[in-house]
Amino acid sequence: MHEIEVYVRFSETDAAGHVNNTSYFLYMEEARTKFFNELGYGHHESLPGLNLILASTKCDYIAQSYAGQTLKVATTVSNIGNKSFTVEHLITNADSGTIIAKGTATLVSFDFEQQKTMPIPEVVRTNLEQFLQPQ
Amino acid sequence: MHEIEVYVRFSETDAAGHVNNTSYFLYMEEARTKFFNELGYGHHESLPGLNLILASTKCDYIAQSYAGQTLKVATTVSNIGNKSFTVEHLITNADSGTIIAKGTATLVSFDFEQQKTMPIPEVVRTNLEQFLQPQ
Amino acid sequence: MHEIEVYVRFSETDAAGHVNNTSYFLYMEEARTKFFNELGYGHHESLPGLNLILASTKCDYIAQSYAGQTLKVATTVSNIGNKSFTVEHLITNADSGTIIAKGTATLVSFDFEQQKTMPIPEVVRTNLEQFLQPQ
Amino acid sequence: MHEIEVYVRFSETDAAGHVNNTSYFLYMEEARTKFFNELGYGHHESLPGLNLILASTKCDYIAQSYAGQTLKVATTVSNIGNKSFTVEHLITNADSGTIIAKGTATLVSFDFEQQKTMPIPEVVRTNLEQFLQPQ
Repeated sequence: MHEIEVYVRFSETDAAGHVNNTSYFLYMEEARTKFFNELGYGHHESLPGLNLILASTKCDYIAQSYAGQTLKVATTVSNIGNKSFTVEHLITNADSGTIIAKGTATLVSFDFEQQKTMPIPEVVRTNLEQFLQPQ
Repeated sequence: MHEIEVYVRFSETDAAGHVNNTSYFLYMEEARTKFFNELGYGHHESLPGLNLILASTKCDYIAQSYAGQTLKVATTVSNIGNKSFTVEHLITNADSGTIIAKGTATLVSFDFEQQKTMPIPEVVRTNLEQFLQPQ
Repeated sequence: MHEIEVYVRFSETDAAGHVNNTSYFLYMEEARTKFFNELGYGHHESLPGLNLILASTKCDYIAQSYAGQTLKVATTVSNIGNKSFTVEHLITNADSGTIIAKGTATLVSFDFEQQKTMPIPEVVRTNLEQFLQPQ
Repeated sequence: MHEIEVYVRFSETDAAGHVNNTSYFLYMEEARTKFFNELGYGHHESLPGLNLILASTKCDYIAQSYAGQTLKVATTVSNIGNKSFTVEHLITNADSGTIIAKGTATLVSFDFEQQKTMPIPEVVRTNLEQFLQPQ
């Protein structure tokens, strides 16, 4: 499991008083970026020798969070296919442990030179498998 | 079908050169807000007499879009349950018609006073059915 | 004067109930982008043959605005120097005309190849002068 | 001096490859929020017994910053008037120390019940003076 903490900015809340639904995707992108960094693949969704395209993201909203709180975003790999893999993000309140949201992202291995999908390289597959936690 | 146009701001792109994955959720929230407005329910996700909670959102990324482009966000209702319903957002390039992304949002009817889910009122159900287009 | 209208998104408000202070800079960037487009210089802050660097931006907050409102952003040029110029943004409520905010941006003409500031080309100066309205 | 570190998110960059001009205002709002927290005044710009209105913000852009970098935002108080005060934000690259941007924010003491400006309470003035560093 890979884990980061994020501080909830006031600008990330909305007039309903809590964190806006779109802000959780900011937190999940930061989590993926740092997860891929830790795997040694440089920042963002791109790995040297392997480039990733974000194919899909989803967020289920469970409980509210508020400005000034600290959230924990835990990332695991739930599925590794031939050309794509899926990560799960569990967002909790860092103090209480309350589950705030659950997210998913599907990433596709892509060869930008040839402009087509490509199999996930073995070395990357091995790295990802260490975080594998099927749902 | 309910349709809006959005202008892609430079701030909504990222260093990969195209619109950031999180920005599409901004466009879809604007589409839902205006859709609910057109139904006569005031802005945001809350309807007088009926309040909605956003339970889940998803976006599938199909093609790139870029700063300065105009996108069309078409919203339909794909499912109406007892206490929740689902809307679909189809995001296309307003000029070329190219499909850029497909989104989904599930909204739950909620009684904030009693703090529990409640059935969708008949009048709302009737309104939503006019936009029903099962997938 | 150059004028655009922007719709205030729910995501652009904050837990204080009104538009977040940072969101006005989104509106002003959109205004500048479209202003430069109208001058025929392509999107964003970059003009072909002339590239601009944003050197400074400022916003004075006069009154509140809220989700679902439409704002007008009027842009004029307040000063044209040798290598830089300054634009003013007046943000008003499109319905009531109430002044919401006043912004300023200073842009510097920059030669990216030589990596140094350069004088504003005459043709650009002539274009800008049509919008000149010294404060 | 009050200091925080912020991580530059990919979503905070733009298609020019660097951090978007609007993102620095996110960082400065986070800095002010935490600064006021440290003074014991709760989150955001509001102090119990004293409420603040953000009257103006400004940012001068000095150098570029990029996704994945860590920035330092140092906050000092540059001026304390009767009813308002001004803070300065110095944003530097946390690794190299390079100055990235300089910001300013003017806050006004406001009595929300009576809906008018009010003098800064003595206890708040004393707190602010500890961070006073006239420019």
